[in-house]
Amino acid sequence: MRTRPPRIALDVMGGDFAPAHELLGAFQALRELERKGVELILIGHRERVLETAQRLGLPHHRLPLVHAEEAITMEDEPTVAVRLKQNSSLAVAIELHAQGEVDAVVSTGNTGAVLTAATLRLGKIPGISRPTIATLVPTEQYRPSVLLDVGANIDCKPRHLYEFALMGEVYARELLGIERPRVALLNIGEEETKGTSTLRETYRLLKSSCLNFIGNVEGRDLLRGIADVVVCDGFVGNTLLKFGESLVATWRARLRMLSRRDLWRRVLFWLLRPTLRRFFRDFDYQSYGGVPLLGVRGIVIVGHGRSTPLAIRNMIMRAHESLQRALVQRLEAAFQPSLIQA
Amino acid sequence: MRTRPPRIALDVMGGDFAPAHELLGAFQALRELERKGVELILIGHRERVLETAQRLGLPHHRLPLVHAEEAITMEDEPTVAVRLKQNSSLAVAIELHAQGEVDAVVSTGNTGAVLTAATLRLGKIPGISRPTIATLVPTEQYRPSVLLDVGANIDCKPRHLYEFALMGEVYARELLGIERPRVALLNIGEEETKGTSTLRETYRLLKSSCLNFIGNVEGRDLLRGIADVVVCDGFVGNTLLKFGESLVATWRARLRMLSRRDLWRRVLFWLLRPTLRRFFRDFDYQSYGGVPLLGVRGIVIVGHGRSTPLAIRNMIMRAHESLQRALVQRLEAAFQPSLIQA
Repeated sequence: MRTRPPRIALDVMGGDFAPAHELLGAFQALRELERKGVELILIGHRERVLETAQRLGLPHHRLPLVHAEEAITMEDEPTVAVRLKQNSSLAVAIELHAQGEVDAVVSTGNTGAVLTAATLRLGKIPGISRPTIATLVPTEQYRPSVLLDVGANIDCKPRHLYEFALMGEVYARELLGIERPRVALLNIGEEETKGTSTLRETYRLLKSSCLNFIGNVEGRDLLRGIADVVVCDGFVGNTLLKFGESLVATWRARLRMLSRRDLWRRVLFWLLRPTLRRFFRDFDYQSYGGVPLLGVRGIVIVGHGRSTPLAIRNMIMRAHESLQRALVQRLEAAFQPSLIQA
Repeated sequence: MRTRPPRIALDVMGGDFAPAHELLGAFQALRELERKGVELILIGHRERVLETAQRLGLPHHRLPLVHAEEAITMEDEPTVAVRLKQNSSLAVAIELHAQGEVDAVVSTGNTGAVLTAATLRLGKIPGISRPTIATLVPTEQYRPSVLLDVGANIDCKPRHLYEFALMGEVYARELLGIERPRVALLNIGEEETKGTSTLRETYRLLKSSCLNFIGNVEGRDLLRGIADVVVCDGFVGNTLLKFGESLVATWRARLRMLSRRDLWRRVLFWLLRPTLRRFFRDFDYQSYGGVPLLGVRGIVIVGHGRSTPLAIRNMIMRAHESLQRALVQRLEAAFQPSLIQA
């Protein structure tokens, strides 16, 4: 039984704007965390963190800081970096989690490195072959769908895709509060006979499982929100995710450009600003603030390298929520041998 | 040597709004075709075509019509439909092409059926293992990229992807007028070592080819227009295409909904209508009006089932352009055994 308050470690050196965005996000989360009795620990290079906090006018003394000499960059090859940079902020954070000093880790760093470090040091939940990274996709239904895998596993066997479905189902149930999540397989047609042999076999596994499997969905269905959990291999998921993100960014830039054409349009767009802002917010993945790695024995939330302070704040709150909902224990229960039918 | 004028057959029964959109599109193209001395023949069910033409007030007597008793629907299983519906508008159109009565076929019908019928009846260009379907992707660079395959081939070997690259290169050169098209492989990272073994092997093939291969690009790069030809397997391409289309449609609907919230916003959006319309047009795949099947011995343009009359008009003009540029002969030349290095 844990006697100390819940504790979250934030790797402040991982993101593209580290440690500034991480510090700003941490302080945005602070009041709510204090109210809930949750402790937040920063992991990063002491001098750089203090210097940045000072520059931003943040009361850094209010948050404990654990020094880490190194940082893993986005360019680092994940497995190499995890092995060689044992003093990186990420490695230190994961180590604290492994030793039970903290209960969750939040990072905006190199996703591959986070996955590797967490899998190696925290281990996998029994029954799960491959931990997975999910993302939340905004839909027309005012609640997001879980899409997985989005990059952890590019060569998937039916068994792996089936496990992703199970993990996604637990996540949607526990974290999104959907009682009986509808699970679907991403394919290029609705019929059972569509797609590669891997997908056809996965269809069979899902159909005979205890999941609420609604069949195949296509790329065009993702935004319709007809499924709560959509399963695909990491190649397709990652490509879709990056394409979707870039489409939103491109539109935003294009609209901004158009709005500056002349004074008349400047005025019109300015008047519509609140409406357009709301419009873009609905499609902004950042508002969900990252999704846990699923399948490792711990709570590890990984976010986009370009996360805004708000996104990082949301990731911290998401870590706390995952902890409260006992996500790891729920996953362990779902993968108990007796419960797996396939 | 051909002595008659160039002749294009339009399957008017294929699309979701057939034959209305097809007829409207045909008459939109008519003046320009006449000016260029190109003949257009409609293929469809006589009574339905005449009835629709009358209802729309179109001077149907100005266009020759070849009767076809049946039509292949979107629900038909392609290979079955092509075998069983020998009197379908699509089969009749392709047959006319095979017999040299027409020089190109345009259809908005069941893509799989168009591909099957064209491959069976027209045959493949020597050296090409699998005909492919490409699409044009709008980019930030004011000219589109060619993305292929987008659904004809879901299980691809390196050899097939390599052939797609070659076909895409010819298309970009001849039809988009790009002197030395930049060819890229869609992957989940830039490094040569990324992706599945199939993609790594394809990378090697492309690198040692005579193509202007610029390496891997990711989902986020598609809209940036850094490559003129992007190669992927049909599963990824089809999923991306459908997701992209649905994202544009969703945004449009959402923006329309927001614009109707109150009188104030109605007025503002109404004033911005020309700007927003232009904005959406830039992202509208329909303005390109379909892309030929590449790899068959003939000009066959296949378009979206929901094509607007304008899109169909553009498809007809695209067919004529492909004919003028001798696309089939260019592809034959590119696949001459001596020119293939891999």
